[in-house]
Amino acid sequence: MFDDEEGMKIAYEEALKGYEEGGIPIGSCLVHEDGTVLGRGHNMRIQKGSPTLHGEISCLENCGRLKAEVYAKCTLYTTLSPCSMCSGSALLFKIPRLVMGENVNFQGAEDWLQKNGVEVINLKNEKCEKLMAKFIEERPGDWYEDIGESEK
Amino acid sequence: MFDDEEGMKIAYEEALKGYEEGGIPIGSCLVHEDGTVLGRGHNMRIQKGSPTLHGEISCLENCGRLKAEVYAKCTLYTTLSPCSMCSGSALLFKIPRLVMGENVNFQGAEDWLQKNGVEVINLKNEKCEKLMAKFIEERPGDWYEDIGESEK
Ligand SMILES: [Ca+2]
Ligand SMILES: [Ca+2]
Ligand SMILES: [Zn+2]
Ligand SMILES: [Zn+2]
Repeated sequence: MFDDEEGMKIAYEEALKGYEEGGIPIGSCLVHEDGTVLGRGHNMRIQKGSPTLHGEISCLENCGRLKAEVYAKCTLYTTLSPCSMCSGSALLFKIPRLVMGENVNFQGAEDWLQKNGVEVINLKNEKCEKLMAKFIEERPGDWYEDIGESEK
Repeated sequence: MFDDEEGMKIAYEEALKGYEEGGIPIGSCLVHEDGTVLGRGHNMRIQKGSPTLHGEISCLENCGRLKAEVYAKCTLYTTLSPCSMCSGSALLFKIPRLVMGENVNFQGAEDWLQKNGVEVINLKNEKCEKLMAKFIEERPGDWYEDIGESEK
């Protein structure tokens, strides 16, 4: 069986790529239960001036058009707790499992996912936590814009 | 004050443009309370092979990066009841008002929006209803894929 740490390693690589590009360091990948990585991506707010390409949306977009039967056998990995839009995308496509790196820097719509039957796992990954905390400290304006908030 | 019928007219124009391109006919626009149309868009699943560019996401993407203070004064128009992803995008950006054309052909996460304080209005627009019904009858496979379901 595919190891969740492996999935998170890919998501973290994406987050780091985003950071190195000068972007918001949140990464994601979609992995089939047979171990196939169907796609990966990272937040593109800065790089593409995109408000909707969060890590998870970017990943799902890079996966291209998939059938319901495929999503039904997948796990969505993300370095950070998924916001309401990204949680909603998992529900839309009926992805049964979501694994996050951490929810210390941001807490999304986890409850809503669980209430709708999605298995939600928090790996409490320190690398994810540190990278995100570093970014928020360095560039709070970009971060708060990404989650629809005024800069604190 | 900006008239909701005006907003829906723009969203419908987008839906029709999508239909004429051979795509899924769902359109959207984001309008500031001062009447400025900040952006518009339509579903791009077929045109761009995109699973995430639903009408509303496409519209928000075309709006570009906006500040929380701007979203806070907007209404999101969409020809069809918003799915969980698109409802989640309205919540993420704290858009306080959503106006839909209809919810006969599909019922999204309206309850979730309302529970979170979003004002939700259904115009029960027959043009929106008929265009969508026509598309679903013509191309059920593309439609069910868009909402993450197997073809009935
Ligand atoms: Ca830890
Ligand atoms: Ca009517
Ligand atoms: Zn998100
Ligand atoms: Zn949608």
